[in-house]
Amino acid sequence: MSMERHKMELLSALEAYGRTDFYPFHMPGHKRNPQFMQLPQTGSIDITEIDGFDNLHHARGILKQAQEKAARVRGCRRAWFLVNGSTCGLLAAIAAATKRGGRILVARNSHKAVYNAIELCGLEPVYLYPQLHEGSGIYKAVDPEQIKALLEKYEGIQAVVITSPTYEGVVSDIKAISHMVHAYGIPLIVDSAHGAHLGYEEHFQPSAESLGADLVIESLHKTLPSMTQTAMLCQCSGRVSDRLLEKYLSMYETSSPSYVMMAAMDQCMSLMKAQGHELFEAFHKRLEDFYNDCQTLKNIRLMQEDDLCSVPGSGFDRSKLVLWVTKAPGMGPWLYDRLREDFHLQLEMASADYALAMTSICDTDQGFERLKAALKALDQELEQKEAGRAGKVEAFYGSETPVMSSSKAAGYTASARPLEDAAGYISSTYLYVYPPGIPLIVPGEEITKEIIALIKGYEQAGLTVLGFEETPESRESDQGKESGEHGKIILCYGKECIR
Amino acid sequence: MSMERHKMELLSALEAYGRTDFYPFHMPGHKRNPQFMQLPQTGSIDITEIDGFDNLHHARGILKQAQEKAARVRGCRRAWFLVNGSTCGLLAAIAAATKRGGRILVARNSHKAVYNAIELCGLEPVYLYPQLHEGSGIYKAVDPEQIKALLEKYEGIQAVVITSPTYEGVVSDIKAISHMVHAYGIPLIVDSAHGAHLGYEEHFQPSAESLGADLVIESLHKTLPSMTQTAMLCQCSGRVSDRLLEKYLSMYETSSPSYVMMAAMDQCMSLMKAQGHELFEAFHKRLEDFYNDCQTLKNIRLMQEDDLCSVPGSGFDRSKLVLWVTKAPGMGPWLYDRLREDFHLQLEMASADYALAMTSICDTDQGFERLKAALKALDQELEQKEAGRAGKVEAFYGSETPVMSSSKAAGYTASARPLEDAAGYISSTYLYVYPPGIPLIVPGEEITKEIIALIKGYEQAGLTVLGFEETPESRESDQGKESGEHGKIILCYGKECIR
Repeated sequence: MSMERHKMELLSALEAYGRTDFYPFHMPGHKRNPQFMQLPQTGSIDITEIDGFDNLHHARGILKQAQEKAARVRGCRRAWFLVNGSTCGLLAAIAAATKRGGRILVARNSHKAVYNAIELCGLEPVYLYPQLHEGSGIYKAVDPEQIKALLEKYEGIQAVVITSPTYEGVVSDIKAISHMVHAYGIPLIVDSAHGAHLGYEEHFQPSAESLGADLVIESLHKTLPSMTQTAMLCQCSGRVSDRLLEKYLSMYETSSPSYVMMAAMDQCMSLMKAQGHELFEAFHKRLEDFYNDCQTLKNIRLMQEDDLCSVPGSGFDRSKLVLWVTKAPGMGPWLYDRLREDFHLQLEMASADYALAMTSICDTDQGFERLKAALKALDQELEQKEAGRAGKVEAFYGSETPVMSSSKAAGYTASARPLEDAAGYISSTYLYVYPPGIPLIVPGEEITKEIIALIKGYEQAGLTVLGFEETPESRESDQGKESGEHGKIILCYGKECIR
Repeated sequence: MSMERHKMELLSALEAYGRTDFYPFHMPGHKRNPQFMQLPQTGSIDITEIDGFDNLHHARGILKQAQEKAARVRGCRRAWFLVNGSTCGLLAAIAAATKRGGRILVARNSHKAVYNAIELCGLEPVYLYPQLHEGSGIYKAVDPEQIKALLEKYEGIQAVVITSPTYEGVVSDIKAISHMVHAYGIPLIVDSAHGAHLGYEEHFQPSAESLGADLVIESLHKTLPSMTQTAMLCQCSGRVSDRLLEKYLSMYETSSPSYVMMAAMDQCMSLMKAQGHELFEAFHKRLEDFYNDCQTLKNIRLMQEDDLCSVPGSGFDRSKLVLWVTKAPGMGPWLYDRLREDFHLQLEMASADYALAMTSICDTDQGFERLKAALKALDQELEQKEAGRAGKVEAFYGSETPVMSSSKAAGYTASARPLEDAAGYISSTYLYVYPPGIPLIVPGEEITKEIIALIKGYEQAGLTVLGFEETPESRESDQGKESGEHGKIILCYGKECIR
């Protein structure tokens, strides 16, 4: 009996897609390049914790050795393989570094997983708002002075969480920030989900591990050749206890971890150990050529350090191709759609004013050439279009502290209101655009007129904001794409509830 | 450049193991049988949430359809694919069904994930202790009358969690239990991690979904052909809200789910839909032959319904081959080791008095023949051994309520004590044998003399108890196997701390 005839739906769609000429400028970092992903037939190596194959949650043998090798490759004290993505690493790191009800300082451009950790651990957040790049709306680096000011202002902060590099490649000055944070005797947790590829070659930014961060969470799949859903938690100091990290990892991560994923991680670390430097050297040269060639574009700007790194000590990861359509605001989705539809180049994401292409050591020369040619063609097409007003993003600077913590908010009974009538109410839900998955609003925050305007702006630009209450109509619409046509409903409650 | 020369450690070990003649009587259910696991080369179908491929956490397209098909196959209202195993399904189900600080009734033979949920949600557990089978120490079914008595005795219970089938195949009377639980207006959550294969054919037990359970969590990988780490959360009623289930799934499960895993799940459900009945019919016949042939064994008893199902309404899943060494107590590990070392048959686990072989529709006739021949040979060998005392397991019936909840216990500072001096102290840690992963002691429970004796008994039988404080020596020992040689250290605190 063959399963051939049962291939349908998801698998057949994936296989059919693999046969097209679509080129991936998105995660995972292996880019479906068979040169870098040579795992054998899945079933043949998919085992469980049998004799000789160790136990991820109590590693003593082959998995301990593999993780020790990974720690050496990343230059940290200990590394834990994560089979539930950076998600479980962030949950475990934050749980281990704080006590229930405590205060935590987080950059407001954190991934939703950080907010989930805050809710699960019942923490009181203090928010740091990084500056925004006007025009593109991209968050710049975290300013060490901002960290210092907030640590001074709010007592009893137990840990600091920032994202570096960001989804768009902005790298903060981890050395200065960790110095500042350690002066208060607390740990710095760096969400480096987009930074697993850093530190192998001098033209790329150094890793957070090498600059004083205490815990660093890295997605191997995002920027290196490894399977989707694989990540590592790297411990670089003794400020957060091994025992608590392992306790929470064993809670948030499956007790049946996939050996296929663990093998993929081990392969990835072996490759970095043996050829990391040379692979990134070659990659650097390719990027260099690409950035040079894109200087002739007139209406699309391939963003660089100069654009995004005004914060002292910050840097930029050039593997992220941030394609800012300078001709007119709101054309990020246009660029993304045209590249996909007319050139079969699938990008990672579109924001209102830019589109983002992710590159890695696994990209081919041909892939870069195709993108270059497509951008030149679209740049010329843009020449004919009318110039828009210079883009100006409404700054999204909210309150340093929410009306109440998300865990408290979870205890209240919310009611459904149309978004346009919700100003002044307290949100009971998360709203976010995915990717990148940074919440626009968090439970316990006030729904302001400004945030409503920002959400409407995103939707007008063609982006999908997730987290609204579902209606029978919205459930039926494909991926919520048409959801702009329905009245948006948000779960919230009045301030009087909390008195 | 080829990655060939970087193949080392984990992957090469897995591949080398695959080339041996070891036969898997363990998870995953696909048994490395290529007939049933025909996923293509991993890298070729490992994508992310690009256009046309939906978003697991807001499914509207191809993943929504796949999950709807799965729900139809399992006869439930909705089904959610889980890429973080049953672990995240249990965490989400319990979080969605309870309020922080609330009371929950759980069978004490629950998997550690249930205890993790209790701690994370800050719940106050009430424990139900199923009867034990004397001799093997296997937990029997949950008695509906026990459930009723506890629901009467303790006010304000918000949900009930039981495991059915158990690791050893014991199935509780879900129909009677759900009827009882619903009379109190609360939901029944069934950890059916070992029950994804039930309900396809009349010789196997019916599924919990078909008998009134509200939420059922099933590991596809354990008993069906699917990748390790794949599972489903099945919702069968409206007693627990979809919105809360989705909220908590999005917290506990990675935001980068693997399309390889999701494709494996979809394939598995397609196969069950098309051929589930005929595959299980053929499997039933094989099992029937095997059970018949094993009746001639004199010193090893292949356990059956008669042995384990004295609780009214309970049943037994014959796909679990529970090999009880009746000749003498404590010989489970001997049987397990001999089968592995001399016959290259890798079983799922050994307990003190029995060893467990897991079978599935993917097992081959040859596999069954090899096991039969090996058991006959070892049965004869046992004939020569001296008979031991009739096995009598110390019943492990602890308190219905712990000294304090595990979440409260997490707030106290514990100190390290040798296990033998810890009687009367409160545990700050979990101790368990994995597999099956049922905690012997939970944070907040009193460490009794009985439990210390039980733990020592397990270790004397050659089993590894996990959860002790690590010492430099224990870290170095391979998989903790030699750990019986070190003094065992447990984290705990005196009762005076909690006054």
